[in-house]
Amino acid sequence: MPKQVNHEERRQIIAEATWEMIMKKGIEGTTVRAIADEANLSLGALRHYFSSQEELLSYSMELVKERVTERIEKKFAQDIPMDELLVHFSLEIIPLDDQSRLEMTVWFHFMANVQFRHKFEGDDGILQALEQLLSLLEAHGRLKPGIELQEEIETLYALVDGLAIHCLFAPVRLTRERIVPIIVKHVNLLLLHPLNSSIFL
Amino acid sequence: MPKQVNHEERRQIIAEATWEMIMKKGIEGTTVRAIADEANLSLGALRHYFSSQEELLSYSMELVKERVTERIEKKFAQDIPMDELLVHFSLEIIPLDDQSRLEMTVWFHFMANVQFRHKFEGDDGILQALEQLLSLLEAHGRLKPGIELQEEIETLYALVDGLAIHCLFAPVRLTRERIVPIIVKHVNLLLLHPLNSSIFL
Repeated sequence: MPKQVNHEERRQIIAEATWEMIMKKGIEGTTVRAIADEANLSLGALRHYFSSQEELLSYSMELVKERVTERIEKKFAQDIPMDELLVHFSLEIIPLDDQSRLEMTVWFHFMANVQFRHKFEGDDGILQALEQLLSLLEAHGRLKPGIELQEEIETLYALVDGLAIHCLFAPVRLTRERIVPIIVKHVNLLLLHPLNSSIFL
Repeated sequence: MPKQVNHEERRQIIAEATWEMIMKKGIEGTTVRAIADEANLSLGALRHYFSSQEELLSYSMELVKERVTERIEKKFAQDIPMDELLVHFSLEIIPLDDQSRLEMTVWFHFMANVQFRHKFEGDDGILQALEQLLSLLEAHGRLKPGIELQEEIETLYALVDGLAIHCLFAPVRLTRERIVPIIVKHVNLLLLHPLNSSIFL
């Protein structure tokens, strides 16, 4: 018996076909008809899952965020010492494998498009997650005294996103071995008890 | 008499029309014919300046880099104290006005496109410039002792590019007033004699 694919799974498969199309043709060249062909569906069948191109593209953008969130939640389900959370979180954001490189490139296409960019302005979930993590560490007395929390959140967010982009564009230079000490060194500016890079390599 | 426009100026005007087209249609939707229309030129006249679509798009991408370089050179032509160079350089990279926001968005379109990305992998000029500036500061004994130069160059590069992207996507949150203290605080980790944020506001 063929594997049953439910409604939500089918939507994800179509969104992944949309990613492939965006990689080839850009957002502006991605039509509902071409996606239906890519996903081996009739136009009518595709309309059953997405009523418009706008809905399909929005969902495809949202799915990038969801996939990253899923990876982080899976990582955090492990028993990780609180002091190490910021480093593990950062390493999940940075695209160190082919799948996350594809997702980040698709994300880039959306963010270059002024129409779609607006959907996520200042709300890609990363800033909010960093706020939560740093607040948690502060509440548990794990941060050095006198930290300006809002400024440090913004700084760490910029550093991690900058590393993520450079890793995407220059993967040969920005290996995991090069990235880990940079993140750990920066996080150690904040933590009361410094971490050792070697536990993340 | 109408203003004489030389060959190179005309190429820049056409490249700027290409930027406008990319903002509207993406790279993949940007055709030589549409650019000729946008720039009020016949297809034959446009071919006089660019022999192929590939050449036109490459030049348009290169022009973004040139414009940023020009701004930095103009800034550095002023008599700036050596210790302040890193902050001024960083502030020229970050898109704080409409023109640099347009340029950075166009740059984003190119970097999202795998074909064009390869032209600039690890070579957008910023990393090299930061290397030169930090080496200059080190040679003049302006840095704290024991700085790991290569790691600090990479860290500053990521921080500045991260801030640039966040400024592009969330300009309401990331104002100059918010960005300057973040950069100065980070640069002060490196400098022997700390700077005061207020001189850059």
